[in-house]
Amino acid sequence: METNRLGVRQRDKYKIKLQYVGTRYHGWQAQKDLLTVQAVVSDCLSRLAGDHVSVIGASRTDAGVHALGQVAHFQFRPRPSIPDLQRTLNAVLPWDIRIMELETAHRRFHARWHATHKRYDYRIYNGSILPPFLYQRVHHEPQPLDASAMGKAARLLEGTQDFSAFAATSSRVSNSVRTLLRSTVIQRRDEIVYRVVGTGFLHHMVRNIVGTLLEVGLGQRTPEDVQGILEGKDRTQAGPTAPPEGLYLVRIWYDRVWSQRS
Amino acid sequence: METNRLGVRQRDKYKIKLQYVGTRYHGWQAQKDLLTVQAVVSDCLSRLAGDHVSVIGASRTDAGVHALGQVAHFQFRPRPSIPDLQRTLNAVLPWDIRIMELETAHRRFHARWHATHKRYDYRIYNGSILPPFLYQRVHHEPQPLDASAMGKAARLLEGTQDFSAFAATSSRVSNSVRTLLRSTVIQRRDEIVYRVVGTGFLHHMVRNIVGTLLEVGLGQRTPEDVQGILEGKDRTQAGPTAPPEGLYLVRIWYDRVWSQRS
Repeated sequence: METNRLGVRQRDKYKIKLQYVGTRYHGWQAQKDLLTVQAVVSDCLSRLAGDHVSVIGASRTDAGVHALGQVAHFQFRPRPSIPDLQRTLNAVLPWDIRIMELETAHRRFHARWHATHKRYDYRIYNGSILPPFLYQRVHHEPQPLDASAMGKAARLLEGTQDFSAFAATSSRVSNSVRTLLRSTVIQRRDEIVYRVVGTGFLHHMVRNIVGTLLEVGLGQRTPEDVQGILEGKDRTQAGPTAPPEGLYLVRIWYDRVWSQRS
Repeated sequence: METNRLGVRQRDKYKIKLQYVGTRYHGWQAQKDLLTVQAVVSDCLSRLAGDHVSVIGASRTDAGVHALGQVAHFQFRPRPSIPDLQRTLNAVLPWDIRIMELETAHRRFHARWHATHKRYDYRIYNGSILPPFLYQRVHHEPQPLDASAMGKAARLLEGTQDFSAFAATSSRVSNSVRTLLRSTVIQRRDEIVYRVVGTGFLHHMVRNIVGTLLEVGLGQRTPEDVQGILEGKDRTQAGPTAPPEGLYLVRIWYDRVWSQRS
């Protein structure tokens, strides 16, 4: 048990990996009077602790976006065993949010600031009739897509570039330069997946890229057009924002140093 | 257009392949005051026809059981094009039922009587924490299962045998002999799937087999015990009925002759 210099018991810090079906939620970030994942997890932890517990997530996923590997941290005063805390928390959480991993973290660990890169997948179902098991879990595009052209366009986005053309118009960040380590299109049967790994993402960036890739897949633009859109740095030249239900936050990486408890 | 000897227009017969998420439904078969898949499909077709349309399904799946390949037939007087009828029907059906294929059928085709064999899969998630995306779509068994022992027991059920020990106690069929062409266990990561192909199944037969295989997987019974249970023909000796959410009706086979319109 950690104590400070005055012998007062400190709160331990925990790191969690979550999965959630985003359909019912207005995204991750707590907002007044709206159901959000952050608020639900915070409420459950607060009930268990008998005290307010803040939960800080690595990625502010939008309404309807899913997570297979969201990471968050929180401080918690009671000291149950790790398996007990994970089991109890999952027992009080609703069915569509699950804590897949829970561990103690370095006392300075911060889920958002220390993330080195993130992977998102965007799932597009390209058959004519959407199987009901995929409802609200993929984006459905019934018109045949040219996955090869989409892949060519996707790979043009790899590297360190100014992604202003794919930033949300409401976004007011000072620097739109981001690095994509991987930007590829994978086809498996009737499904086309856009897979992207980057050090950081602008708001709506993945969905704006996908909206543009869909236009390439439909033959409305060429892969070369995408190069021009990127260089033009003008949001109005790119495609529309693809709907949220196809987007999955898959994985977040941290330096190994944060895996050890201080 | 077909007419009878008096020149009156006949109703065409159609064969459909359906997928449905069974969670919301009290099974396939229409029952007074309960939501069933058969009633919903029949209601939608009746609205489109302006006349009552009966829908006959190949398999009477139970409440909560899913279908990837249910087959049904119906007669329909209006004569829209096949793509139009399929599109319109899917547009009026709720999200969790979809007509994946629609074709005209031989006028004597009967979805239940002419089925030669059926395949069911039973999905068991065997990890400690159920990913939320699998909620109500698999059975969750958090205790580690011995898939190899389950597979040995499963294979003992192949062939033509009296399956009284695995029939629902309420069942009153005169003959409990059925033929299983395949009865195997497949493991993929944290999931164990029982896959069975048979010429016919007694009520609850697949779920009663799975309930027994789960006991084998947990080490409470040996594969040899299953041989004894089968030979004993006593329902009380087999395991409990496994829950419905893991069961999928996957495929139904017919003789080729029924693929041709009369």
